[in-house]
Amino acid sequence: MDKNTRPEKKEIAAATLAALGEFGLIERIRQRVRANPAVLTGIGDDCSVCTFPPGEVLLTTKDLLLEDIHFRRTWIDMYSLGWKSAAVNLSDIAAMGGTALYVHLGLGIPAETALDDLEAFMHGFLSLCDQENTTLCGGDTCRSVQGLCISVTVQGSIPQAELCQRSGATPGDIIYVSGTLGDSALALLQLLEGEKPEAHIALRHYRPQPRLQLGRALASQRLASAMIDLSDGIFADLGHILERSGCGAELDTRLIPLSASVQQHLHQQPQRRTQVLKGGEDYELLFTAPAEQQQRIAQLSAELNVPLTAVGKILPAQEGLRSIDHCGITHTSMRENKSDASNPGGFNHFRA
Amino acid sequence: MDKNTRPEKKEIAAATLAALGEFGLIERIRQRVRANPAVLTGIGDDCSVCTFPPGEVLLTTKDLLLEDIHFRRTWIDMYSLGWKSAAVNLSDIAAMGGTALYVHLGLGIPAETALDDLEAFMHGFLSLCDQENTTLCGGDTCRSVQGLCISVTVQGSIPQAELCQRSGATPGDIIYVSGTLGDSALALLQLLEGEKPEAHIALRHYRPQPRLQLGRALASQRLASAMIDLSDGIFADLGHILERSGCGAELDTRLIPLSASVQQHLHQQPQRRTQVLKGGEDYELLFTAPAEQQQRIAQLSAELNVPLTAVGKILPAQEGLRSIDHCGITHTSMRENKSDASNPGGFNHFRA
Repeated sequence: MDKNTRPEKKEIAAATLAALGEFGLIERIRQRVRANPAVLTGIGDDCSVCTFPPGEVLLTTKDLLLEDIHFRRTWIDMYSLGWKSAAVNLSDIAAMGGTALYVHLGLGIPAETALDDLEAFMHGFLSLCDQENTTLCGGDTCRSVQGLCISVTVQGSIPQAELCQRSGATPGDIIYVSGTLGDSALALLQLLEGEKPEAHIALRHYRPQPRLQLGRALASQRLASAMIDLSDGIFADLGHILERSGCGAELDTRLIPLSASVQQHLHQQPQRRTQVLKGGEDYELLFTAPAEQQQRIAQLSAELNVPLTAVGKILPAQEGLRSIDHCGITHTSMRENKSDASNPGGFNHFRA
Repeated sequence: MDKNTRPEKKEIAAATLAALGEFGLIERIRQRVRANPAVLTGIGDDCSVCTFPPGEVLLTTKDLLLEDIHFRRTWIDMYSLGWKSAAVNLSDIAAMGGTALYVHLGLGIPAETALDDLEAFMHGFLSLCDQENTTLCGGDTCRSVQGLCISVTVQGSIPQAELCQRSGATPGDIIYVSGTLGDSALALLQLLEGEKPEAHIALRHYRPQPRLQLGRALASQRLASAMIDLSDGIFADLGHILERSGCGAELDTRLIPLSASVQQHLHQQPQRRTQVLKGGEDYELLFTAPAEQQQRIAQLSAELNVPLTAVGKILPAQEGLRSIDHCGITHTSMRENKSDASNPGGFNHFRA
């Protein structure tokens, strides 16, 4: 980067955002949001005002994405960052089996942020919202002296009887995952090592597709007994289900569906297998279902054209988590200390 | 502060938060939240799941509070910061006339934060939630490398016919404000100048009381034609109503209700009058009402024991905003540039 032109460019960008002003920026975002008759008052009052489907229950999820913790501006383009910020929250609605309805966005923006970058961020964010028929209804924008700070809240709904929670697994249930796992973790690992990930692997890391249609179908057909989205990695996320359901499980890691790229990469670099499988951020769904639903699940997989792969089964709690490695050897881990039992091998924000 | 002991103390605090872990911290918060039968699933699943009052519409508000932008840790104790983080959002529900129902909290926490400080923050936050019968249902916690980052989302509800929006003011309506204005701004001004604010003035800055009961009463009795909470200052917030309602107004600043402390202070330091009146963060309600409601409003004021003071009237748009100063001189300002018309004299996050 040319150091002589950089400060000047920054000044121009800052001047432009300053000239536009907080309310100018909000107005610009408002004009780009698609109209939705269910949104009675969107951006521009103390609260947004929306209708709510009669007889359903309210689902809410909220995630913070902080610069240099969740993302690095040098690794992700702003369109993808906007997309991903919406995706990780929409994925939580998918994991309950719900319909995503409304989105609220809080942005803490460093003064030197270029308007073009903000536009690209909003374009990515709103593109996914449009794709999933959910509407940005409000939020908050302010200056940040501490890097870009993104806070997303998504609201959805579901008939209460169709809810898929973490607590519903029963011994004997089969454990399924959708799609393929490990693509996102491999891309991140390569970025960390200074390698360039393949384009379609990188895309799975940068622009995950929340599995809303699948989640809704599993819930409305009452196929899943428990469900979670794969954000922290399969071991950690299965651990959340086991903890809430009071169960153990057997997970055969040889059955975990991998893309051709990940298979090929792990063939060449087998020492990365554990990292890739534990890495998370796939935003696929992990769910459990009674064994007698196998055929209906295969049908749904064909209908939606989404691979649904059985990777293990739920066991009684005293069996712990049995994990079968790539050599066929079984490793059994029991829950240790309560405070982190729910997160075996996953990402812990406060660990040194 | 003793520089020799400080780093050691920091290390201990960091070790404790690291030992507790992200999930340990969430569990600790979960145990302190009051049970609410309307919250079907609170903290601990992909989404919270809550019932929604049949026939009402959904109100949502979301605010970011960033360290060194919205607050300084050296100026505000953690209990007050927690309280205020809830208050500024609850105040938005009050401004629509709604009932506050559910709260979600996102926290980006620097690793060196002491557990005691986090506990104090949550104690303040949950104390106001309890007071206002609203329940913390979920959110997100993560590490921050950039100071404390607080994101709050509050959901409420209201029968649609009772909604008080910014857009409902009509020429002839009287403009009212609740309580007294300027206490919070005076406290902030004194902090900025290195003076020590009086305790009860400081409390209005640190622990504002959202006017939920008043907002609900004005809405359910259909008294207010338009309403907003006073966060940006009376000129800016009245400006929001005028813009949305397409009106002008006359505001007699001599009628703005001031506490005895503010009156006394401005008597001694009259040059601070404008700053104190424009400062914002009172979290009182500003509303408009048809002139024929004057008596019912006086009654409500007596019933709730909340001063409601007429400070001006709504005019046709072409009259602009006429402001009568303390000498009785009228200043007329017309709307200028669209992008900032909604924020005359208020706080703009992106202005240099």
